[in-house]
Amino acid sequence: MAAPVAPLVAIVMGSQSDWPTMKCAADALDKLGVAHDVRIVSAHRTPDRLVAFAKGAEAEGFKVIIAGAGGAAHLPGMVASMTHLPVLGVPVQSRALSGQDSLLSIVQMPAGIPVGTLAIGEAGATNAGLLAAAILAGNDPALTERLKAYRAAQSDGVAQRPS
Amino acid sequence: MAAPVAPLVAIVMGSQSDWPTMKCAADALDKLGVAHDVRIVSAHRTPDRLVAFAKGAEAEGFKVIIAGAGGAAHLPGMVASMTHLPVLGVPVQSRALSGQDSLLSIVQMPAGIPVGTLAIGEAGATNAGLLAAAILAGNDPALTERLKAYRAAQSDGVAQRPS
Amino acid sequence: MAAPVAPLVAIVMGSQSDWPTMKCAADALDKLGVAHDVRIVSAHRTPDRLVAFAKGAEAEGFKVIIAGAGGAAHLPGMVASMTHLPVLGVPVQSRALSGQDSLLSIVQMPAGIPVGTLAIGEAGATNAGLLAAAILAGNDPALTERLKAYRAAQSDGVAQRPS
Amino acid sequence: MAAPVAPLVAIVMGSQSDWPTMKCAADALDKLGVAHDVRIVSAHRTPDRLVAFAKGAEAEGFKVIIAGAGGAAHLPGMVASMTHLPVLGVPVQSRALSGQDSLLSIVQMPAGIPVGTLAIGEAGATNAGLLAAAILAGNDPALTERLKAYRAAQSDGVAQRPS
Amino acid sequence: MAAPVAPLVAIVMGSQSDWPTMKCAADALDKLGVAHDVRIVSAHRTPDRLVAFAKGAEAEGFKVIIAGAGGAAHLPGMVASMTHLPVLGVPVQSRALSGQDSLLSIVQMPAGIPVGTLAIGEAGATNAGLLAAAILAGNDPALTERLKAYRAAQSDGVAQRPS
Amino acid sequence: MAAPVAPLVAIVMGSQSDWPTMKCAADALDKLGVAHDVRIVSAHRTPDRLVAFAKGAEAEGFKVIIAGAGGAAHLPGMVASMTHLPVLGVPVQSRALSGQDSLLSIVQMPAGIPVGTLAIGEAGATNAGLLAAAILAGNDPALTERLKAYRAAQSDGVAQRPS
Amino acid sequence: MAAPVAPLVAIVMGSQSDWPTMKCAADALDKLGVAHDVRIVSAHRTPDRLVAFAKGAEAEGFKVIIAGAGGAAHLPGMVASMTHLPVLGVPVQSRALSGQDSLLSIVQMPAGIPVGTLAIGEAGATNAGLLAAAILAGNDPALTERLKAYRAAQSDGVAQRPS
Amino acid sequence: MAAPVAPLVAIVMGSQSDWPTMKCAADALDKLGVAHDVRIVSAHRTPDRLVAFAKGAEAEGFKVIIAGAGGAAHLPGMVASMTHLPVLGVPVQSRALSGQDSLLSIVQMPAGIPVGTLAIGEAGATNAGLLAAAILAGNDPALTERLKAYRAAQSDGVAQRPS
Repeated sequence: MAAPVAPLVAIVMGSQSDWPTMKCAADALDKLGVAHDVRIVSAHRTPDRLVAFAKGAEAEGFKVIIAGAGGAAHLPGMVASMTHLPVLGVPVQSRALSGQDSLLSIVQMPAGIPVGTLAIGEAGATNAGLLAAAILAGNDPALTERLKAYRAAQSDGVAQRPS
Repeated sequence: MAAPVAPLVAIVMGSQSDWPTMKCAADALDKLGVAHDVRIVSAHRTPDRLVAFAKGAEAEGFKVIIAGAGGAAHLPGMVASMTHLPVLGVPVQSRALSGQDSLLSIVQMPAGIPVGTLAIGEAGATNAGLLAAAILAGNDPALTERLKAYRAAQSDGVAQRPS
Repeated sequence: MAAPVAPLVAIVMGSQSDWPTMKCAADALDKLGVAHDVRIVSAHRTPDRLVAFAKGAEAEGFKVIIAGAGGAAHLPGMVASMTHLPVLGVPVQSRALSGQDSLLSIVQMPAGIPVGTLAIGEAGATNAGLLAAAILAGNDPALTERLKAYRAAQSDGVAQRPS
Repeated sequence: MAAPVAPLVAIVMGSQSDWPTMKCAADALDKLGVAHDVRIVSAHRTPDRLVAFAKGAEAEGFKVIIAGAGGAAHLPGMVASMTHLPVLGVPVQSRALSGQDSLLSIVQMPAGIPVGTLAIGEAGATNAGLLAAAILAGNDPALTERLKAYRAAQSDGVAQRPS
Repeated sequence: MAAPVAPLVAIVMGSQSDWPTMKCAADALDKLGVAHDVRIVSAHRTPDRLVAFAKGAEAEGFKVIIAGAGGAAHLPGMVASMTHLPVLGVPVQSRALSGQDSLLSIVQMPAGIPVGTLAIGEAGATNAGLLAAAILAGNDPALTERLKAYRAAQSDGVAQRPS
Repeated sequence: MAAPVAPLVAIVMGSQSDWPTMKCAADALDKLGVAHDVRIVSAHRTPDRLVAFAKGAEAEGFKVIIAGAGGAAHLPGMVASMTHLPVLGVPVQSRALSGQDSLLSIVQMPAGIPVGTLAIGEAGATNAGLLAAAILAGNDPALTERLKAYRAAQSDGVAQRPS
Repeated sequence: MAAPVAPLVAIVMGSQSDWPTMKCAADALDKLGVAHDVRIVSAHRTPDRLVAFAKGAEAEGFKVIIAGAGGAAHLPGMVASMTHLPVLGVPVQSRALSGQDSLLSIVQMPAGIPVGTLAIGEAGATNAGLLAAAILAGNDPALTERLKAYRAAQSDGVAQRPS
Repeated sequence: MAAPVAPLVAIVMGSQSDWPTMKCAADALDKLGVAHDVRIVSAHRTPDRLVAFAKGAEAEGFKVIIAGAGGAAHLPGMVASMTHLPVLGVPVQSRALSGQDSLLSIVQMPAGIPVGTLAIGEAGATNAGLLAAAILAGNDPALTERLKAYRAAQSDGVAQRPS
């Protein structure tokens, strides 16, 4: 029996309500066979959990962190402030401002602490999973092949004409 | 000789470049005779300092915290996540987006962790000082009088006609 | 029999239609045991009531004022212009512009007259209640304890993983 | 010697700094021979002056009011709340947000209290003067002729080709 | 039998789809007893009708024109370019951009051709009716009384507390 | 001596101040050897000239019209309403809103009256010239060759590395 | 039996989900009797198809290309980069940002590569069809007549009054 | 003599004018000792170069690609469409819209093709360099140490108080 694979990607989100969006990141990683762990870490309601997670992420064996949040979305940037690991941010679509607040809160980081930001909402979450896989693929030829196959299938799946 | 007055208001900002804006908060407090302390606390570059400051603010004797930052401005919200003291946020005008990113990053906090947000830039910083004073005045009749005098003088200073 | 507690917080709003939003402020104060009064004060349709309320708020015994309005939301700023009490503003989500007009009308106050502005909509109203409580807690150790307990329970209520 | 003409148009503005913009309204009225009065009335810093002006405007003999302000621009709407006279609003260009805040604060009035809003800045101020004249011209054939002449000259002044 | 009253206000709109919004202007005028005429005049699909209407409006006896349109809303400004009568513009809420395009297309007129612009949507249409009445009231004491009564009733109709 | 070539493209603009921008359209046409005529046609200040130009454009022999304007930019759409010729619109950068108003006023045309809109400012004007040439090239093999050469030279002019 | 007419207009779109919008372009061309071809060409998922289509469009006999896409809408601009044919862009309304991202991604092309951009959504797609027809009409008197008839019928179809 | 190190990061930009911004990415990589190559690749003016670069990037030995562009910024997304390598996008500040167009054009990618987007302007370019280093550090312990040292020095460099 094979030993379980240690997760290389952590998916964290600010609240339960972000899960329908962030599940797309998990789905993308599943399709590419990348083990991942999913947690709720609220920058605002659980700051201690935030600190513990961000500072311990390297020791836990994570190689990439995907963080999603909405509104004044501080989770991705604050995680990035406490780890040197690559952090990818997903702006969750907010109620009043449709994610414009989430996007600016995540992407407009000052020089020194990067967050690689994806699109607002589900497309962004899917792409965070794909980008995490692409990052890991740099050191994993088998994953590279799966990623190329995923991309090729994606191209093949585009119909020639609308119906 | 009178003992020095312990500062009741902490003014923190994300970087040295925020000081020309945040100095307006200090000036307003000076005019109203409210002792304050001024520090640089970068949410992103000095997260440990952020945690230490926010968690220790009550013990240091602060009653109100004014936090200013620009761009993906996480400082006010993250301070608020680690203290029950009233936190006032000042969106510093950013280069590309003129503070629209700063404003949304500060004001759009989720339910549970409030940040009382002021206007973008110097007017907001001045008003953060005034609002901190108004908060402290609730328990300080002498400060209330100074605040009323400040407001009255402000009204008197408005000319009847432009020149 | 205990005497009724005089309300320390006034919650005012521009119209009946703001109540579903502003009720969240009342609910937050209720949870923290802070007595409050709720009124409709339209800056535009009842300017006399506005003047009477704002000028009389201190004499009525209020210590903090929460004002919510939508669109060209002048209520918070106009109340603030006629009292030195701390005024917290809640931008109610508007129909066409989703509260972007409400937010800018409330937060962009000129130097001299502060309004501590919260997020657009229900989250902002809840946080206005919490911030009012935090302001009052500066002089009320029992309220401080209730506020800390509220915050701790809030943290404890965040699940470890989404479901 | 002719008696001085009582001013029919009041031009009010929130602060001295609005005058370079609002002067364009005065200039337009001068060109059309419409007597006007110019005052500083700050909704926020001089609320009593605001109330006195708005409630007394009809008795002073004004027929149209032009009000200019920037940022959280409450002056036009608050004047309109206390008079049935036509109120024209001019959004003064603000520093951080280029008058987008001014515009939304003035134009997004709720049903019941209208403010006829012009463009941001000097063009808006000029047009406020012209619109005030057009309103007065409804009962003044001589002014109608002057207005038509002004418009005709304006058309004639447009060159056929750029140079 | 009384002769029918000639309409003093023209309400024009770009298309049938604007009518649910613009009907609010007609309703406001009805409540104030101001005769008005309602027409569809599309700046883009019926430019000849536009020219005929705008150039003939004075001769038809109109004193004020209310023009509503959405998207690239050229009707108010183009009517204003061909008449010296006061023109009030109503930005109709558009599908993709919620009336932000309509608002900017109407309000940002160049110096020389004013359009007094009201809020986006139904509130703006109601207010266009009220402002037209206020303009006409300058020469009609009976209408002034009706307008004051309308405003007083509006104030009286505001409940003291939400329910 | 060769007869002068009748201009196939009309470049019109709302005012003299648009010329520094719109000159880029003329320059692009010059480089491609496309004869053009340049005029000032203000939709708002010279509506008669607008009607005459738009209705007569086909008879004058124009095949494409380039129209540039800023702010509440009605010129392109109004020209398009009175001709079936292809109309290209250039949003001129405006003072307060940097051309966002110009862009929306031009591009958001209702179904039925198209305006092909280019980028804000000089790049848009250059591209209007190039697109006009591309339209004419559909029936002009020599122009097609010149256009291809222009594009090839443009590609060749891109350096391999920055300096 | 008449030979089938070779399509002169290509309608391409980024995905199947754009078809409900882009169908309006096809419908407009159908009404005007302009043969067209409809294809899905995803700039991002099928870049090879993009290159093949854009480089081969002239040889296929197309005279005008209509390209629609949403979000980071790169299709119109990338097609334009590889052909000298006139390219018309349609911003498809996106989920979070209502097409504001689509519009800016399409219209803000740099000098050298034009895309004639239409309105967001269905109106823009209809107008892309009409503008394509107008372009082709420059060399097709019969189409010119059909286009004029279409426009005349459109004008005639506007009711005098709303109902 | 040591052999030159093959560059692992490619920095590409749309034009020479992007270099002052993108140089910050090169500088960050230099500080961390990461070899990189810098090229101009215009998606619009040199599409063939774009295809050749993106398809050949893996074979050239690149592990991460940083792409910067402004306005309708298609370069990052189009590179990402033709490689599975991680692509980081930098929105260059544009003239009229201050980089809002650049940001949306880069970040709003559809599901399937990710671009990790950084902040507008120089901060974003610096952070692209840092994020590229963080990605490479996942397989390079020495680089990890340098990255940690860089971050530590950055924290140490933040003064305690403004001056």
